Amino acid sequence: RRKYKNQYPEILSDISQIEFKSEESKLPAVSSDVKEKFSHTFSTKIASFYKSSVAQSKPSIKKVGVVLSGGQAPGGHNVICGMFDALHDKGVELHGFRMGPAGILKADYFRLTQKLIDSFRNTGGFDMLGSGRGKIESDQDLEKCLAILKDHQFDSLVVIGGDDSNTNAAVIAEYLKSKGEDDISVVGVPKTIDGDLQNDYVEMSFGFDSATKLYSELISNISRDAISAKKYYHFIRLMGRAASHITLECSLQTRPNIALISEENAAQNKTLNELVADIGEAVIDRANRGLNYGIILIPEGLIEQIPEFSHLIHELNQLLADEAGYIDTLISFSAKSEHINKKLNKDASYTLSSIPMNIQRQLFFDRDPHGNVQVSRIETEKLLLEMLEAYLDEKRAKGHFIGKFSSQTHFFGYEGRCVAPTNFDANYCYSLGRTAAAIAWQKWTGYMAVNSKLGLEPKDWEPKAIPISSMMAMETRNGKLKPVITKALVQVDRPAMECFKKHRSAWLKEDHYRFVGGIQYFGPSELCDQPPMVVQLDCEGK
Amino acid sequence: RRKYKNQYPEILSDISQIEFKSEESKLPAVSSDVKEKFSHTFSTKIASFYKSSVAQSKPSIKKVGVVLSGGQAPGGHNVICGMFDALHDKGVELHGFRMGPAGILKADYFRLTQKLIDSFRNTGGFDMLGSGRGKIESDQDLEKCLAILKDHQFDSLVVIGGDDSNTNAAVIAEYLKSKGEDDISVVGVPKTIDGDLQNDYVEMSFGFDSATKLYSELISNISRDAISAKKYYHFIRLMGRAASHITLECSLQTRPNIALISEENAAQNKTLNELVADIGEAVIDRANRGLNYGIILIPEGLIEQIPEFSHLIHELNQLLADEAGYIDTLISFSAKSEHINKKLNKDASYTLSSIPMNIQRQLFFDRDPHGNVQVSRIETEKLLLEMLEAYLDEKRAKGHFIGKFSSQTHFFGYEGRCVAPTNFDANYCYSLGRTAAAIAWQKWTGYMAVNSKLGLEPKDWEPKAIPISSMMAMETRNGKLKPVITKALVQVDRPAMECFKKHRSAWLKEDHYRFVGGIQYFGPSELCDQPPMVVQLDCEGK
Repeated sequence: RRKYKNQYPEILSDISQIEFKSEESKLPAVSSDVKEKFSHTFSTKIASFYKSSVAQSKPSIKKVGVVLSGGQAPGGHNVICGMFDALHDKGVELHGFRMGPAGILKADYFRLTQKLIDSFRNTGGFDMLGSGRGKIESDQDLEKCLAILKDHQFDSLVVIGGDDSNTNAAVIAEYLKSKGEDDISVVGVPKTIDGDLQNDYVEMSFGFDSATKLYSELISNISRDAISAKKYYHFIRLMGRAASHITLECSLQTRPNIALISEENAAQNKTLNELVADIGEAVIDRANRGLNYGIILIPEGLIEQIPEFSHLIHELNQLLADEAGYIDTLISFSAKSEHINKKLNKDASYTLSSIPMNIQRQLFFDRDPHGNVQVSRIETEKLLLEMLEAYLDEKRAKGHFIGKFSSQTHFFGYEGRCVAPTNFDANYCYSLGRTAAAIAWQKWTGYMAVNSKLGLEPKDWEPKAIPISSMMAMETRNGKLKPVITKALVQVDRPAMECFKKHRSAWLKEDHYRFVGGIQYFGPSELCDQPPMVVQLDCEGK
Repeated sequence: RRKYKNQYPEILSDISQIEFKSEESKLPAVSSDVKEKFSHTFSTKIASFYKSSVAQSKPSIKKVGVVLSGGQAPGGHNVICGMFDALHDKGVELHGFRMGPAGILKADYFRLTQKLIDSFRNTGGFDMLGSGRGKIESDQDLEKCLAILKDHQFDSLVVIGGDDSNTNAAVIAEYLKSKGEDDISVVGVPKTIDGDLQNDYVEMSFGFDSATKLYSELISNISRDAISAKKYYHFIRLMGRAASHITLECSLQTRPNIALISEENAAQNKTLNELVADIGEAVIDRANRGLNYGIILIPEGLIEQIPEFSHLIHELNQLLADEAGYIDTLISFSAKSEHINKKLNKDASYTLSSIPMNIQRQLFFDRDPHGNVQVSRIETEKLLLEMLEAYLDEKRAKGHFIGKFSSQTHFFGYEGRCVAPTNFDANYCYSLGRTAAAIAWQKWTGYMAVNSKLGLEPKDWEPKAIPISSMMAMETRNGKLKPVITKALVQVDRPAMECFKKHRSAWLKEDHYRFVGGIQYFGPSELCDQPPMVVQLDCEGK
């Protein structure tokens, strides 16, 4: 696998022969607050890459640093391999910071060698450098970062990360420039399996394809089990907090009986009880036709986007913070529950009492270090299942449901973050790495390395440099208004979603499970090299 | 994938040209009770296959039935494809019974056509026919089975299933013969992902290779995640009730920090507290060396094989049955718990009070239709984790543990039962199908189709027919003494286990994770065609 030859656009084969041509972007207008925050680096110009008539013989830069930031995504190593190949060729050193942004502040880095790079080509994981969720945001940290990059004579820092990490890259770029450090550039590379770092220019973040293909294989296997045994409903929760891209892609790949899309539920303002009733009626309808099994996909973030639930969580966070001292003196769960219930407002209290006891328990006890309810720890698939069982029991007692109902629950997340990248991601990441190297070579700062036209073959992808700040909006985070890259939610009317909506009632009524099989690296191209379906469909829909 | 050409021993290419040669088996002596139960079919002779000098021109049989019995295992479809190809060639009809043995009793079957067979080649799942856990055991059912096979003019019934299903095949064979039905044969095929259908002749049941390779890929991905993020201990429970073969194979494949083998714990008579202390000390030792993450594999059946726990479960089952009426009148969990605790004997009560409250809850409330504790529903990984957290908290309070401890839990089971078979399983199953067809052709009854020398290439495998009854012993099931195929546990001194024991302390101290990648079908042979490691190691060890 390590010997797989990555494909990429020809223009990237020699970064010293690339010329940037800027053009005005068609990105949506950005607020004046964002422009103000990034007064030194803000731009609305994007750069396309053209072959220059003359190659620069002297390298413009000597030493580049790279850091992996945030959760793992398949292909991260290939970004670094692409950078290395492009830079090494020109005599530029590439150094890797260990364990995320924290490694920058500790000046914990080492020079990457050909041998090391070759041993990590086309592999999953971030173990070449390690990763971390640290951020460089305070003035003190930014100052330290500047000092270290300067003292250690770095010409460029490349940050491989998700929306927050790319925001951080832009913040560092702005800080350096504001301090007159015109010779150190900062470049971002769009990573995240969640697929929520997407916009008019970023067609898809890397890692999404590999992770969703792995999840789809597992869902397929379980679908095959369901249709063979014909006795279980499988409730499968999939990673993806804010956005349901993973669930949408996996649905298109595997055609489950039901797939919940958080954004659609939020748009319809559906309550949890309505959602459970929808599923319950679908189960009853299938039972009437002799089908007592099925596959139900649930995005991890669903619960946060159910209106009455997000209110409850908000109130609970407030209450648990205000009354932490007194609540800790109450020993039993029932005493705590009674006290909390009295203090909640009517709606929140009503919501709380509608959910099963052990989920209430999770809400009270599973708290993060800030005392907040840990929403990601809530086993949404079990919550829905328990409520569904209660719904069906009631219907059964009234004689409206005569089928059988047995279930299994699953959660897929960590399995996919470090899978060996698909051919698509392996090539895409390698190409992004060369793109990032080209941007560093040009000394452009605050830009993100992007490839577009991903629906085409790698040789036809278009590398670009996009100003990170142009993707930003002001949002409240931890009580403060901050510029951040807007998380891309699933647009309810995007072509991929339209395709899903068109077919789902057939998938529910009859079984149209699609058995996708494992990720293949060596077989025929139509099996091994396909980009994600959402990319293909959106591409066709345009 | 459907077009993959299966490989198999040349002798099986024409079932009409095979001659059986019987030889006395070297299987361990079988009890006289078993011999008595199978007085009409018992044999200790095994048959090897030889090329006959003359082909029989006339088919000895006209109509064969096949049934899939029990849980799904990858490759089941290929057994049927192998049978079809071997029989169709000779003008013999192959019919499939739907939804397991229950389909036989309902005469619910259909003729398998070339087109249908071709659409299922090398696919996972049992959806060609469906499967079921029914058994044909009562005199009434056996009589019905005989009548249906006879009325519908079946010459042979092939049962694809695990130890229980093969036992059942032998019981049906014996019944038919005892009723003078010498012309209907019953043949078994050894299936189960658990790998507990193994003995001197059955080197490995089919499906094990595919399932363990899929689990190993997922474990590898999570190992890669662990070593990249360096912040979580992953507790991974793997399918496999009675035996820990799956956990052993996955350990050899992926080299986790810790893998528990139920059989070894049972042999050492280790209590749950001792086991938790072992893990706790390992975690503390790793923390002292800066490693606050790790991979821990846990076989599903572990809990049942911890001595004090199996006593507790046994007592609880008795008590819950005896006192069901009164216990149901107690409403709260604490009232039930108090009542039950008083009635347990000292040891059982002590064990119960040592386990976390929510597992106690599972023991009381999650009961099967017979009122028994549902051991397979106990989330052993969470039980161990909770006890470990308590252990570490105590150590921390005493200043003996200063590391961090965060965790994630996983359970892999259903994901692997229906994966598309590996090349090994695809070929093995296809070859078993042809072997079963050859046995049916010879009209031998009560025999299992077996291939040995699986460590070699498919063309060198040796097809054999083994009398099922010769693998049996008398065991108590549901209170009755019955002849059953003994479940193969992991022998603590087998070569594969020795290999594991030799390396595991290094795997614990340092990290030797092996990243195995997904199942590949089209690549180089050393990547795509390897049999399970336990088979390879046992083969070399012999």
